[in-house]
Amino acid sequence: MSSKTTHSRRRSARSDGIRTRRAILDEAASLATVEGLDGLSLARLAERVGISKSGLFAHFGSKEELQLATVERATEIFDEVVVRPAAGAPDGLERLRALLEGFLGHVEVGVFPGGCFFASAAAELDTRSGPVRELALGVVADWTEALEAAVREAQDEGRIVRDVDPVQLVFELDAYVMLANAQFVASGSNDPLERARRAIADRLAAVVAVARRP
Amino acid sequence: MSSKTTHSRRRSARSDGIRTRRAILDEAASLATVEGLDGLSLARLAERVGISKSGLFAHFGSKEELQLATVERATEIFDEVVVRPAAGAPDGLERLRALLEGFLGHVEVGVFPGGCFFASAAAELDTRSGPVRELALGVVADWTEALEAAVREAQDEGRIVRDVDPVQLVFELDAYVMLANAQFVASGSNDPLERARRAIADRLAAVVAVARRP
Repeated sequence: MSSKTTHSRRRSARSDGIRTRRAILDEAASLATVEGLDGLSLARLAERVGISKSGLFAHFGSKEELQLATVERATEIFDEVVVRPAAGAPDGLERLRALLEGFLGHVEVGVFPGGCFFASAAAELDTRSGPVRELALGVVADWTEALEAAVREAQDEGRIVRDVDPVQLVFELDAYVMLANAQFVASGSNDPLERARRAIADRLAAVVAVARRP
Repeated sequence: MSSKTTHSRRRSARSDGIRTRRAILDEAASLATVEGLDGLSLARLAERVGISKSGLFAHFGSKEELQLATVERATEIFDEVVVRPAAGAPDGLERLRALLEGFLGHVEVGVFPGGCFFASAAAELDTRSGPVRELALGVVADWTEALEAAVREAQDEGRIVRDVDPVQLVFELDAYVMLANAQFVASGSNDPLERARRAIADRLAAVVAVARRP
């Protein structure tokens, strides 16, 4: 009985630790889109989560460690709200649309207060060097690759015409959602999101292989 | 004679002051695209220009004053290398092309080490408030308006079809050059600039009123 209690206390302490770590990282991912990853104030972060600054350091030995864990947590959130829901699409063309709309939707509902976490991180870190930059730019590259894979699949399925260069098409589609993100955050208006939706619909209408279908 | 010497010394001291101020702002505009406007280190800036930190404060009473003057200097540079050369274009369509190519060119040659000064400043300041943000976002709005004015002129001149919405078209064209800027800075590769050039050419080809000409 006593050993059982000790065990359950240990387990509870561990899950408290996991919960606190998660709370710190959720807050850090939000704050980073407003203040930057370098601008993250450990004092303010600790205060927001309701722990001491030394309590924060018990979870993350250094600011870089915190930044890396924050990028990882933001990646989990992005996967959860944008990438994974699109995985259920019936084909490549619908997955492409779902990824782009998922991106615009996560900006619109304010998953992060400063818009896309990775656009924000990339703009901040693009001229720096180090593991935090590499990790954040890796996620941006994965995003581009997911879009390109959807285009290629749509071509294999005969839904997007063959003579379209997937890299070029994805550059254009990605450009719309990225500018929409930047303008939405700067203006607070939904107009840029609507412009991106219209641009995507027009661009895809021009490459969808309707004419070739019987 | 003595009064003349004093006068010319005063004038020379004043023009030294102007030169130093200009040197500070050129350096600040470059540094800000790498370290951010908030990240501008006054100590490093003074060191780079070769003056003391108190010498720097003799020119700018506060960091905000320095930031505002830096945005103004970056605006002058942007006007000089991107906007003004396009003003000589023979018509609206050519001015539109010249503005977009001027933008890509100033990124390509590295006028600022961190790419477009205003994309960098907007990404940093979009979630803040205050006069520096307002000034920087005002320049971005001027840029968009210059592109829209060129499209409208091209429509009046019969070079771009009437049924195109200038705001929507400019959103798409601007999206290409903005993503090219971000990817060029992150990767150091010219490929994104070439993709933007191709996207602009294709998008304009679809709206240029060739068929309606005799």
